[in-house]
Amino acid sequence: MAAEPHPLLVEPLVRTALLEDIAHGGDLTTDAIIPGDRRARARIVARRDGVVAGLPIAATAFSLVDARVRMDVRAADGERVGAGATLAELEGPARAILTAERTALNFLGHLCGIATATRALVDAVAGTNARIVCTRKTTPGLRVLEKYAVRCGGGGNHRFGLDDAVLVKDNHIAIAGSIRAAVEAVRARVGHMVKIEVEVETLDQLRELLALPVDAVLLDNMSPTQLKEAVAEVNGRLLTEASGGIDLSTVRAVAESGVDLISVGWLTHSAPALDVALEIA
Amino acid sequence: MAAEPHPLLVEPLVRTALLEDIAHGGDLTTDAIIPGDRRARARIVARRDGVVAGLPIAATAFSLVDARVRMDVRAADGERVGAGATLAELEGPARAILTAERTALNFLGHLCGIATATRALVDAVAGTNARIVCTRKTTPGLRVLEKYAVRCGGGGNHRFGLDDAVLVKDNHIAIAGSIRAAVEAVRARVGHMVKIEVEVETLDQLRELLALPVDAVLLDNMSPTQLKEAVAEVNGRLLTEASGGIDLSTVRAVAESGVDLISVGWLTHSAPALDVALEIA
Amino acid sequence: MAAEPHPLLVEPLVRTALLEDIAHGGDLTTDAIIPGDRRARARIVARRDGVVAGLPIAATAFSLVDARVRMDVRAADGERVGAGATLAELEGPARAILTAERTALNFLGHLCGIATATRALVDAVAGTNARIVCTRKTTPGLRVLEKYAVRCGGGGNHRFGLDDAVLVKDNHIAIAGSIRAAVEAVRARVGHMVKIEVEVETLDQLRELLALPVDAVLLDNMSPTQLKEAVAEVNGRLLTEASGGIDLSTVRAVAESGVDLISVGWLTHSAPALDVALEIA
Amino acid sequence: MAAEPHPLLVEPLVRTALLEDIAHGGDLTTDAIIPGDRRARARIVARRDGVVAGLPIAATAFSLVDARVRMDVRAADGERVGAGATLAELEGPARAILTAERTALNFLGHLCGIATATRALVDAVAGTNARIVCTRKTTPGLRVLEKYAVRCGGGGNHRFGLDDAVLVKDNHIAIAGSIRAAVEAVRARVGHMVKIEVEVETLDQLRELLALPVDAVLLDNMSPTQLKEAVAEVNGRLLTEASGGIDLSTVRAVAESGVDLISVGWLTHSAPALDVALEIA
Amino acid sequence: MAAEPHPLLVEPLVRTALLEDIAHGGDLTTDAIIPGDRRARARIVARRDGVVAGLPIAATAFSLVDARVRMDVRAADGERVGAGATLAELEGPARAILTAERTALNFLGHLCGIATATRALVDAVAGTNARIVCTRKTTPGLRVLEKYAVRCGGGGNHRFGLDDAVLVKDNHIAIAGSIRAAVEAVRARVGHMVKIEVEVETLDQLRELLALPVDAVLLDNMSPTQLKEAVAEVNGRLLTEASGGIDLSTVRAVAESGVDLISVGWLTHSAPALDVALEIA
Amino acid sequence: MAAEPHPLLVEPLVRTALLEDIAHGGDLTTDAIIPGDRRARARIVARRDGVVAGLPIAATAFSLVDARVRMDVRAADGERVGAGATLAELEGPARAILTAERTALNFLGHLCGIATATRALVDAVAGTNARIVCTRKTTPGLRVLEKYAVRCGGGGNHRFGLDDAVLVKDNHIAIAGSIRAAVEAVRARVGHMVKIEVEVETLDQLRELLALPVDAVLLDNMSPTQLKEAVAEVNGRLLTEASGGIDLSTVRAVAESGVDLISVGWLTHSAPALDVALEIA
Repeated sequence: MAAEPHPLLVEPLVRTALLEDIAHGGDLTTDAIIPGDRRARARIVARRDGVVAGLPIAATAFSLVDARVRMDVRAADGERVGAGATLAELEGPARAILTAERTALNFLGHLCGIATATRALVDAVAGTNARIVCTRKTTPGLRVLEKYAVRCGGGGNHRFGLDDAVLVKDNHIAIAGSIRAAVEAVRARVGHMVKIEVEVETLDQLRELLALPVDAVLLDNMSPTQLKEAVAEVNGRLLTEASGGIDLSTVRAVAESGVDLISVGWLTHSAPALDVALEIA
Repeated sequence: MAAEPHPLLVEPLVRTALLEDIAHGGDLTTDAIIPGDRRARARIVARRDGVVAGLPIAATAFSLVDARVRMDVRAADGERVGAGATLAELEGPARAILTAERTALNFLGHLCGIATATRALVDAVAGTNARIVCTRKTTPGLRVLEKYAVRCGGGGNHRFGLDDAVLVKDNHIAIAGSIRAAVEAVRARVGHMVKIEVEVETLDQLRELLALPVDAVLLDNMSPTQLKEAVAEVNGRLLTEASGGIDLSTVRAVAESGVDLISVGWLTHSAPALDVALEIA
Repeated sequence: MAAEPHPLLVEPLVRTALLEDIAHGGDLTTDAIIPGDRRARARIVARRDGVVAGLPIAATAFSLVDARVRMDVRAADGERVGAGATLAELEGPARAILTAERTALNFLGHLCGIATATRALVDAVAGTNARIVCTRKTTPGLRVLEKYAVRCGGGGNHRFGLDDAVLVKDNHIAIAGSIRAAVEAVRARVGHMVKIEVEVETLDQLRELLALPVDAVLLDNMSPTQLKEAVAEVNGRLLTEASGGIDLSTVRAVAESGVDLISVGWLTHSAPALDVALEIA
Repeated sequence: MAAEPHPLLVEPLVRTALLEDIAHGGDLTTDAIIPGDRRARARIVARRDGVVAGLPIAATAFSLVDARVRMDVRAADGERVGAGATLAELEGPARAILTAERTALNFLGHLCGIATATRALVDAVAGTNARIVCTRKTTPGLRVLEKYAVRCGGGGNHRFGLDDAVLVKDNHIAIAGSIRAAVEAVRARVGHMVKIEVEVETLDQLRELLALPVDAVLLDNMSPTQLKEAVAEVNGRLLTEASGGIDLSTVRAVAESGVDLISVGWLTHSAPALDVALEIA
Repeated sequence: MAAEPHPLLVEPLVRTALLEDIAHGGDLTTDAIIPGDRRARARIVARRDGVVAGLPIAATAFSLVDARVRMDVRAADGERVGAGATLAELEGPARAILTAERTALNFLGHLCGIATATRALVDAVAGTNARIVCTRKTTPGLRVLEKYAVRCGGGGNHRFGLDDAVLVKDNHIAIAGSIRAAVEAVRARVGHMVKIEVEVETLDQLRELLALPVDAVLLDNMSPTQLKEAVAEVNGRLLTEASGGIDLSTVRAVAESGVDLISVGWLTHSAPALDVALEIA
Repeated sequence: MAAEPHPLLVEPLVRTALLEDIAHGGDLTTDAIIPGDRRARARIVARRDGVVAGLPIAATAFSLVDARVRMDVRAADGERVGAGATLAELEGPARAILTAERTALNFLGHLCGIATATRALVDAVAGTNARIVCTRKTTPGLRVLEKYAVRCGGGGNHRFGLDDAVLVKDNHIAIAGSIRAAVEAVRARVGHMVKIEVEVETLDQLRELLALPVDAVLLDNMSPTQLKEAVAEVNGRLLTEASGGIDLSTVRAVAESGVDLISVGWLTHSAPALDVALEIA
C-alpha cells in the first residue's frame, strides 16, 4: 500500500484545521450542552461508492482533540467501498467526537474524493502501459496529503515540488533560446540524483530533445494520434508523459497511444469530495 | 465589495504553500536556466468564464518570492470575467515570476472556482428572498480564504467556526434529551453576542423550537413543499435556513419556498477550480 | 461550570511562558543543586480568599516540564476558597516541580485574580437582571484564558474579537454619517449568524437606533438615572448594556437601572493577581 | 533611556495579539462600514497622570495592520505625562487605525501601568541607596516587555529567567541539606559569568552565607529593623536585596535600612493599567 | 554560480540564530554603551585564504537586526579570496552592526569553511571525470545552507533528503532479502521522477545490480583498484559513486579510478570554519 | 553530570532536522522496501575514541519518528568511550529506526565531537587553575546543545547570549571613548544580577580596568608571558580569561600563566564530528 505521510507532517496540518474551529476557546454548542463525562460511540460511513484515503488523518483529528477517543478502522486507505460502508468506529468522550467531527470529515471527504477520481482513471487505462500521475496543481498547504490520496487511488506521483526534479517548460526554453541550451544549463547545475523532463509541443521539438541527456518528455496537449507518433519516435529512449485536458472520457484513447504516464491536474484541484458522514450510535 | 482577509492571515498561508515547492532550496529548473537579472512580463488570464476571487492572494505569492515583482490587477475580486480575460499583469525578475507561478495559480484557480459556483447559485435565486451561504465544510487550512471567495461570488457566510455561533444539531438534541433542554443549556452558558440556531427535521420539532429564544432554524433535508410549510409556520419569528443536497438544478425551487438562507456545503469542498493561466509576454 | 479552553490553545501559551525561563537550557539553580532522581511533594495554596481559575493551566505547566509530575486538584475552577486553602497537590520529580513553579503560579494567580474580581461584581448585582461581562481590553496573548477566568467568576463574555460580532462605535458612526448608515452597511455585509450592537451616548441616539434591526445597545458612560430612562425607552426590544468606569462601589446602582449587561474592562486588564504559592511538603 | 526590546521580539507578540481580534478574516464592523480608501487622523492620549512605556509596541500594532499608518510620537517612553497629554499622533487608512486600536492600547495601557507604579516606588525611595527591581512574577508571555516597562519607570531588572542567574531559595537549601552544600553545588556547575544570590530568612542563615562565595543575598520578609541589622552584618561584602510584601506605604522604611535592592513582584503582576485612549481627530 | 537558497528559507534560520543572542530583550553591552543614533562603518574580512560562501546569509543577519544597515559585498559567493581580503563593507547604526556581528560571522565562517574544503577536493580531482558531492551528514537544521556552500566550492549535491531520491543501503537489502527484491519494491512504489541508487560492497553485488533498472551505484569503501574494476564492469550503464573515508590525500587516486562521483560526508559535518572577522572602520 | 537541555528546547530542534529528510512525505526508500510491521534491533557504536554527548537528543530523534522505538543507553553523556564501544541499543519498528538514523547520528556525532575536543583541552590543563570554556562562536541554531556538549567534555560555559552577561570589547570602548566610560555606562543600565567582563589587549588597559567595578577581564591574544604578568597584576581581584588562537599544543602554557579561564571558539565551530554509526543487529 501507499506509505502514509509521516505524523510529523500530518499533525501540524490537523492542528491548524482544528484551530479554525476552536480558536476562541472551544466548541460553544457542544461545551454548553454535552456533559464533560458523557461518552459516545459513532461510525464514520461513506454515503457513496468510492476509494478510501485519509483514515489516519481523520484519526489524528480525534486524538488531537482528546487522546482518549479510540478510533478503530474498518476499511483501509486504498480500499474500494460501497455506499453505506462503515470506514471506522469511534468510542470516547462525546464532546471530543462532536468537536473533531467536521475537521476529520473535511480531510477524509477531500482525500477520498481524490482517491476515488484517481481510481476511475486508473481503471479506465487498465491493460495499457500508462500510469496515471498527479501534478503540482494541488490545494495550497495540502500537497503531501493529496499526493498520498492519489497513491491510494492507484496513481503515481510526479515531482513533489520545484526542488526535487526538473521540468523544463516552454517559458524556460524561450528564455534559454533553445531546448539544447536549457538542458545544458540544467545538466551543468543540478545534482546527479535529479531527474530531468522537458515539455515539448511538436514532433520537431521532440526530435531535438532526443539527442539530449534527459530522462523524460512531457508531450503537452497532443491528440492520441500525435502521441502515438511521438511514442514511436521516442522508441523507449525516454519516459513519455501525456498531459493537457485529459478526462475520464478521453483517458483510454490517450493511454492506448503507448505513453508511459498520463498526468492529470484536476485530480488534486477539482475532484469533488466523497460524501462521508459521522453517525452517533 | 467583500473585505479581503487581512494580510496577517494571508501571508502565512502563502508562505506555507511556497515552501511546498522550494523547501530544498529553490526552483531547480528556473535557477539553473534563467539568469538572475533577467526580467519578464506576464499576464494572468482566465481560460473560462467565471467570477474572480483571490487576486490579492496571488499577488502575495509573487511578492513573497521577490518583492520586486509588480502585479497590476486588471480585474477586481467579485467581478465576472469572460474566457480570455486578463486578470493581472506582472513585471519583474523572470525567476520570481516562474517560481511563484504555480502557487499563485493554485490559490487563484481554487478561489475563483468557489466564487464562480457561488455566483451561479446566487443568480439562480435572483428575485427571491434567499441568500446563498457557505458552511464549515471547507478545505482544511483555507477556511478564511474560502469564506471570502463565497462573498466574492455574492454569497454570505455562515458561522466561521465552532467558536463564534451556536448550531444545535440532532446529536446535541439527542444527548440533551430535548430541544428545550439543549437550548436552555446553551442560553445559560454562551455570551449575549452569540447567535443560536437549531437544526430541525420535522414540523413538530419546528413547533417545539418556536417557543424558545433562538435566532434561526436550520431546516434540514426538507422538500420545497415542506420548506414552504415551515416558513409559514415560522412567520418571520426566526431566520429560516434550508440545507441538504441543494444544487443548481434545485436551488430555485428551494428559494421560492421563502427561506431566508440556503446553505451549500459543496461550494467550498467540491467546486471545481477555474482554469487560470500565466502567459509570459 | 465554565468550559475550559481547549488544550490545543493552552499548551502553546504555557510552552511560551516556560521558555521565558529556560531558553538557555534549563533552570541553572535547580539543575545544579537538585539530583535528577529526587522526588518531592508540594501543595499549591491560596494565601487570600478568592475564586479559583486556571488549575488546568497550572497542571499543563508541570506536565510540560515533566510528564511524570502528578497534580491532583483539591478545588475546582469557579470555586470560592478561603485563605490557606489547598488548591492542588503535586508529586513528582523535584526538579520539574521547582522549574515549573513560577510559570504555573503566574498563570494561576493572574486568572484567580480575574475570577475573584468578577465574582465580587457578580455578587454585588445579585438579584438584579444584570450580568457582568468582560471586554476586549485583555492582556495581549491571554484573551482566551482571561475570558475563561471571567466565566469562572460567574461573569459572561462579550465578543471574543473583532471577527465574531459587530460593535458599532462612535468613530464608525461619525465616518458612516449616521447610525442608520452604519447599521445598513453592516447589515448588508456581515453574515446572518453575527450579532450587532451599537454604542450610543444619548437618548436621542438611542431612539434613532430603536428603529433599526440590531440586537443590542451599548449605553456608554450614562448615569444610573439615564440608564433607567434608556431601559424604559428600549422596553425589551434590544439587549441593553452599560459600560464606562463602573466599579464595585457603583455597580449595584447601575444594575438596578434594569440593564441586561454591565461590561467592565478592568476585570481583565487591572484585576490584581490572587496571592497563590507552592509549598514543598 | 532604557533600551527597547528588539523588534524581532516585539513583532511576534503583537502579531499574536492582533490575531486574537481578526483570526476569522478581519474586523467585521470596520470592514463593513469604513471605505478602504478613507484616511483618518487620531491621537493617543493619557487620561491619567502616569509614566509612558510601550509606544514602540503600539506603533508596531498599527504598522503590522497596515504599513501605511504613520505614528509620530509626542512623548518618550520613560517620560512622565499628565492626564490629557498626547502620547502620539496617527495618520493613515482609517480601517487600520480602528482595527489596531485596541491591541495598541492594550499593550500601552498595561506597560504604562507598570512604569507608573514603578516610578511611584522609585520616587518614594529617592535619596536612599535602594534600587527598585522587578521579579519573575510576570504575565506569561510578556516578560521582556514588562521588564522593559520597569526600566522605563526608573526601576531595574532582576534576572530574566531561570537560565541567566542563580537564586538559591529555601527549597533548594532544604534539599541540598545546607546553604553551604547548595552554594558549592552551584559553584561547581554554573559558568563564571553567572551571578549567584541566596535567599535567607534569618540572621543566622545570613552569617552562614557570608563565608561563601556568592554575589548577593535576598533578605526575605524581614522588617526594616531586621534589614538594618542584616545590612550591618553584610557590611558591603554582598549586594543586599529586600523582598516580600513591600508596597508604597512601606517601601521608604525598607529603603532606609540601607539595602541595595528592593524587589517587588506586584509591579509586573498587579499594577493596574494606565487609562489610555485613541481619539479620532 | 550556485543559486542561493531562497530568502524564505534563509530568514527563519537567521532569525532563530539571532534570538539565541537577544531573547531576553537585546544586546546588554551594546545597548548600554552605544548611543542609538551612532552610526558606524565596518568591513568583513577573511583572515585566511578560502572560498566565499554565505554573504547573502550574513547580509540577512544585519538587515533583520536593523533594515537600515547597508552591506555592500566586495566578493562573490564561490570566489577564492586571500587572507586579508575584504568580503563586504557595512554602514549603518552602530548598535545593529555590533549586535548582528557574531550571528553573521557564525554563518559566514561555517559556510566558507565548507566551500573552502570542497574547493580543495575539487581542485585535487581536476582533469578527472569525478565530481565531488556532499551527503546527508549535515549539521541539523542547516542542510539547505550547507548544500549551497558545497556548490559554492564547486561541488555537487547528492539527494537533499530521504524524500527526493532513493538510496538502497545494506540494511534495506538485508531486510528485503536481495538486491533484486529491494529494487523491485522501490520500482513499484516510487514516482517516475525519482532516481534510484543502490549501495554495493562487492563486485558480485555490483553484477547482480547491473541487471536491474537503477540509475546509480554507490561503491562503498572500495580501494582505488577495486573501484577501477567496478567502473570497468559498469561500463557506463550507471552512474558510479565512490564513498567512505575519502580525504584530501586519497581523493585523487579515487578519482583516477574513473568514478563519476565521490561523496564526502566530512565536508558538511567536520570542515573547520574559515576565520572571518568584522572590523569597525 | 552536566544538566541536559530541557526537552522543550530539544524537541523543536530534532523535529526541524527530521523534516529536512521527510518533508515531502516520508523516507522513499524505507517506506517502499521495509514492511510496516517489521521490527529491528540496532546498536549505536563509536568508531573512534571519544567523549559521549547527545544521547538524549539521539533518543528524541527515534521517539519523534515513532514513539514505539525503545532506546537503552549503554553509556552516559560525559563518559569516555573507546573505539567500538556501544553507546545505545535500539529495538522497535525497522522503518522508524532507519528513517531516524541519520538525524540521530548527525546530532550525536556533532556533539560527541565537541565533547571530545573539549575533554582533550581539559586534560591538557589538568592540575592548573584554568577552566576551559566555550564562546558564542557556535553553529547557528544549536547553541544550547553545543554549550551542553562542552559541559559534557568537562568544560564550562561563557555567557549564552548577548542578553545574559556583559562583555565590553574594543569596539565598545572605542565608541565610548574610554574603558571607564564604557564600564560606567554599563553599570548604570544593566541589572544587578549581570556580570561584567571587559576585554583588554595591553597591561596599560588592564591597569585602567582594575580601578573599575567589573567581574572579569578578557586578556585577548596575549602570550603566556604577558598573561603571567597580567595575572600578577590582577592579583585575584578579577576573574582572568585568556583567549585567542589557543589550541591543544599551546593550551598548557597558557594555563600555566595562572589564568582562571581559557576560552576557545573552535570547540563549537570547528571540532570535527566523532565517527558514530548505527548497526542493525
